[in-house]
Amino acid sequence: MKIYFAGSIRGGREDAALYFQIIEFLKSYGEVLTEHVGDPALTNVGDDGPTDKFIHDRDLEWLNASDVIVAEVTTVSMGVGYEIGRALATGKKVLCLFRPASGNNLSAMILGCDELSLVYYSDLAEAKKAIVEFLN
Amino acid sequence: MKIYFAGSIRGGREDAALYFQIIEFLKSYGEVLTEHVGDPALTNVGDDGPTDKFIHDRDLEWLNASDVIVAEVTTVSMGVGYEIGRALATGKKVLCLFRPASGNNLSAMILGCDELSLVYYSDLAEAKKAIVEFLN
Repeated sequence: MKIYFAGSIRGGREDAALYFQIIEFLKSYGEVLTEHVGDPALTNVGDDGPTDKFIHDRDLEWLNASDVIVAEVTTVSMGVGYEIGRALATGKKVLCLFRPASGNNLSAMILGCDELSLVYYSDLAEAKKAIVEFLN
Repeated sequence: MKIYFAGSIRGGREDAALYFQIIEFLKSYGEVLTEHVGDPALTNVGDDGPTDKFIHDRDLEWLNASDVIVAEVTTVSMGVGYEIGRALATGKKVLCLFRPASGNNLSAMILGCDELSLVYYSDLAEAKKAIVEFLN
């Protein structure tokens, strides 16, 4: 199984350590195409490719090649929203994970969308549980 | 012409007054379906509909009914990213307007995307110029 993990890069790296842990868990279920999203060395400058066009085209290719998308949507990110929108438009299965304790206002485009699975969680154990249920 | 204007709501309302001015200008070219995005009374609570599902489904219907999308992408917004992703997936023409002076890091998903038109601007006059060129 090919898994596309989506998390904030230029929108802010507050949750980078959590992305890393989720990706490590996802790797027990398949190939995570976007493993770099959890790299602690990757900052909000977002230099995860030689050019922005390279990053966009690579990520879109990975998105189209993936079987499922798992998105951590707590940190507000234009790119994560874009990826979710494009994935749903091609009928992909999308799991969105959100931590209400963050105090962030989640977009109505995510909260009100019937085409995706949205799970609220508070810690890694709950995130793992949601992922297991989603993948099974 | 039906125009879908996309701007941040729950991601932050710092640019709400600017959205209003852009929408007023767009109205001289056609019907702006999302005129409420510029409403100064609309806060980042994002209560622009009775439920999130209502907001999502209404906005997606408007997006699909629109001829062009004009998105102000300076304030980071999950919903705006989602709308751009869905619009491009159905072949819509999208103009993204960004103010570099904000100091925000624009997503590589926007910066590196060949399928949309991206214009940097500094004030309303430059935004209007970009809109005129895009619509003609």
